[in-house]
Amino acid sequence: MTIQGEQIIGQAISKGGQGTVHAIEAATGTRMEPAFGGADKADLDRACALAEAAFDAYRETSLEARARFLETIADEILALGDALVERCMAESGLPRGRIEGERGRTMGQLRLFAGVLRDGGYLDARIDPAMPDRQPMPRPDLRLRNVPLGPVAVFGASNFPLAFSVAGGDTASALAAGCPVVVKAHSAHPGTSELVGRAVHAAVGKCGMPEGTFSLIFAAERAIGEGLVADPRIKAVGFTGSRTGGTALMRIAANRPEPIPVYAEMSSINPVLLFPGALAERGAAIGKAFVGSLTLGAGQFCTNPGLVVAIEGEGLDAFLKGAEEALVAAPAAVMLTPGICSAYAKGVGAVEGHASVSVVAKGQAGETLRGQAALFRVSAADFVGSAELQEEMFGSASIVVVCRDAGEMTQVVSALEGQLTAAIHIAQADHEAARAVLPLLERKAGRILVNGFGTGVEVAHAMVHGGPYPSTADGRSTSVGSKAIERFLRPVCYQDLPDGLLPDALKDANPLGLWRRMDGTMTAPKA
Amino acid sequence: MTIQGEQIIGQAISKGGQGTVHAIEAATGTRMEPAFGGADKADLDRACALAEAAFDAYRETSLEARARFLETIADEILALGDALVERCMAESGLPRGRIEGERGRTMGQLRLFAGVLRDGGYLDARIDPAMPDRQPMPRPDLRLRNVPLGPVAVFGASNFPLAFSVAGGDTASALAAGCPVVVKAHSAHPGTSELVGRAVHAAVGKCGMPEGTFSLIFAAERAIGEGLVADPRIKAVGFTGSRTGGTALMRIAANRPEPIPVYAEMSSINPVLLFPGALAERGAAIGKAFVGSLTLGAGQFCTNPGLVVAIEGEGLDAFLKGAEEALVAAPAAVMLTPGICSAYAKGVGAVEGHASVSVVAKGQAGETLRGQAALFRVSAADFVGSAELQEEMFGSASIVVVCRDAGEMTQVVSALEGQLTAAIHIAQADHEAARAVLPLLERKAGRILVNGFGTGVEVAHAMVHGGPYPSTADGRSTSVGSKAIERFLRPVCYQDLPDGLLPDALKDANPLGLWRRMDGTMTAPKA
Repeated sequence: MTIQGEQIIGQAISKGGQGTVHAIEAATGTRMEPAFGGADKADLDRACALAEAAFDAYRETSLEARARFLETIADEILALGDALVERCMAESGLPRGRIEGERGRTMGQLRLFAGVLRDGGYLDARIDPAMPDRQPMPRPDLRLRNVPLGPVAVFGASNFPLAFSVAGGDTASALAAGCPVVVKAHSAHPGTSELVGRAVHAAVGKCGMPEGTFSLIFAAERAIGEGLVADPRIKAVGFTGSRTGGTALMRIAANRPEPIPVYAEMSSINPVLLFPGALAERGAAIGKAFVGSLTLGAGQFCTNPGLVVAIEGEGLDAFLKGAEEALVAAPAAVMLTPGICSAYAKGVGAVEGHASVSVVAKGQAGETLRGQAALFRVSAADFVGSAELQEEMFGSASIVVVCRDAGEMTQVVSALEGQLTAAIHIAQADHEAARAVLPLLERKAGRILVNGFGTGVEVAHAMVHGGPYPSTADGRSTSVGSKAIERFLRPVCYQDLPDGLLPDALKDANPLGLWRRMDGTMTAPKA
Repeated sequence: MTIQGEQIIGQAISKGGQGTVHAIEAATGTRMEPAFGGADKADLDRACALAEAAFDAYRETSLEARARFLETIADEILALGDALVERCMAESGLPRGRIEGERGRTMGQLRLFAGVLRDGGYLDARIDPAMPDRQPMPRPDLRLRNVPLGPVAVFGASNFPLAFSVAGGDTASALAAGCPVVVKAHSAHPGTSELVGRAVHAAVGKCGMPEGTFSLIFAAERAIGEGLVADPRIKAVGFTGSRTGGTALMRIAANRPEPIPVYAEMSSINPVLLFPGALAERGAAIGKAFVGSLTLGAGQFCTNPGLVVAIEGEGLDAFLKGAEEALVAAPAAVMLTPGICSAYAKGVGAVEGHASVSVVAKGQAGETLRGQAALFRVSAADFVGSAELQEEMFGSASIVVVCRDAGEMTQVVSALEGQLTAAIHIAQADHEAARAVLPLLERKAGRILVNGFGTGVEVAHAMVHGGPYPSTADGRSTSVGSKAIERFLRPVCYQDLPDGLLPDALKDANPLGLWRRMDGTMTAPKA
């Protein structure tokens, strides 16, 4: 497959005619060929109409057919071969190892949801059998299953050009749920998007899925993405990006005649709490490991450790020294886009210019389009009084908040907004202090880690990549892991339906072999 | 316990000082004693501050302690005795049988959630054990459980003064989840509210729950309820009422610095589809049963059958004749409030005055404050062209939409907004036609019934009392049944926590005896 600059609307591949989107080589800032044609309103309308037309047929495909479809998408992505890896490296500035790893993760996500479908537990099948003789009123036969919400709009993320873009986590979970997907490609990696879009397009054809199951558009103007969220046929939105972008989509969705859920993953500074015992035991080592997490992928992770909270003392000094030593050796790194690079420089400059902030260390300076790592420090009192210091610097920059005692640590954590992750570094002697702070961390973050950093997000059943606002628009959900499918479901109850009219998930004979709640009790399928 | 006109803020019972709320005897329109003092902003602030202060302690009470607390609330409500029933009858105009039944349902809801807590499945406990030797990267230990959102605001409903009011479904599910509750009493039944509030207050004391677990305020001005939704300490809202009221709360919640979920159950006309085979077999009998559902509780149910859709012919004629005979005998019925009664009369008048609508039959006329039942008819083409005919008439009024064929029936259903329920009446010969329409009904409604009406809402595990907008603010949820607890939860992931720091739900030894997903597979607790 070669990149043609074309959009994919159902089974039709064509060049959009409203403006153009150009890929920019991240390392050099030069424009890459070809130009991508932007969608116009008619394209958008066609994509939504096809998605709507596909919905009833697609959602009634069998669990096995949908599982194979997801696996076929994974196979087709792999079949794109090195052309995908190289284009993605050029567009994102990320190194080969990272892109190959991300491709593996993307395929892993699709396969995880294939497993979720074969398990069928996500349907939450429940049966409360009729009680015809109950007094004073008989009980009807009640059965419940989850059904998909409808067509879903997905906005690709700049920082995960594969794993959170065209066939990334949002698309995989929506397709698994039974929702057709319309993707608005991120302009940071249009070529990668087209290639992956063609892989999904091929899988739709090979698996005989309805035409409108998947569409991919490029947008030269903001109005197209906004129009996608406003379209009455779209029933939910998946987005990963900035707080400004996410809250704009939330507003559009809330003001529709029919409001719809927006799952926007926005910004997080991922506090890392260093406890005295851990610092005394291994302060320098933690400092070094911290810099490894901070500079990974040029710091362009939603889970990047943008804040360190610790009590002053020798242990913290050791941490700072270890971090400084590692940081000064950190090379400047190519950032995803020129825009992200300049926003990072601006954010770092604002913190550096802040009256109460001082510099701990900086990484190596680099040529243009590279981000220079930076570590700052501020007192707890100053941090709590400066809400602007909680703003995410999207890149390898972090602030150490120096507390006088445990009480100040708690004050700092209390003042934080919602976060994707919160990490604590502890030794045995810190367990009681950690126990005391855990309830607070549970209220602030979707994931709590011990003696690690949040930058590795495992794709698993127990993962939560989500958290209270503003880390996400809706802290009741996760965008990574098998539980992500729940975002695109709603329950329907069937009362007194004859067995022949019930969906297979709820028929007496349990043809899908599901675990079901019978009168509230989890019940295994009969062998 | 006697009614003093007092609010309950934590363990303090006092008379609010900002304006007064008066109960009105529904049957006579006369003002009842005593006056209820309205809360001021300081009262509101205290209730929210206490709820916030109670949250961490309350949510960490054991499942068994919370189950007993809910059961104690049920016991305390029963202990209010006939004083509660009589006051509730006077304030609502509903007959003794209904109120006693509703009290039983209210207690049943509390006990259902006690069972949900003892089962523990709502925690969705998941464990993905560490894989230290995995290549290329080890997998950390990941564990997930649901935690409560935080303090919840509950707005009592006028039409269920017990089952969806102070200790009703929203309160029961939020308390079960581990959320403190601040109730804004509905002004239609302040005396009932105070009595039930005192029962909850007593249960808080007897069970040693934290003071701020429950508060109850009266509001003489709209600003107090609005302020409750806007308060930063409130993390979710439960509401049952009008579309105007619900959407106003949705707007406030969406525009907060931290938006929060609103579970508003608003309006629904609950279409009833009559298929030709069923009409031919038992048209008159369905007509009679339909009127029974229509006039139940003076039609003041969210699930009242406000729309009938059928194909013209002898069968429909028999239905109309059966309905007419039953309807003309239906006495006028006392309505919940003078305001609801006049809104109902106005809504019926608007439909009756609609150019394309004709009257099928009316119930008996009655004195003032009584609602007169009414049945109208309109052609499918006229209905589809008149969005205003979809507006809920809250009372015993319904419209029969007469279709020429099955295609028109589908057009009518397609034109409908989201609904709580949709019923189909079928005979064996109708099964294929019913099967064809089921996917459409699944998209329109939260509950689909065969050969019945939606007015009985069973409190069970497989119940869904919810549906696409505007029947509710959030069709992903239910407000009745055990699944309602999910509205007030969010998942948290624990990565690499030492066993001693994990919550009991996730400890290796499984001390709570929970079913857990181990590496994605549902696993029974060891005996």
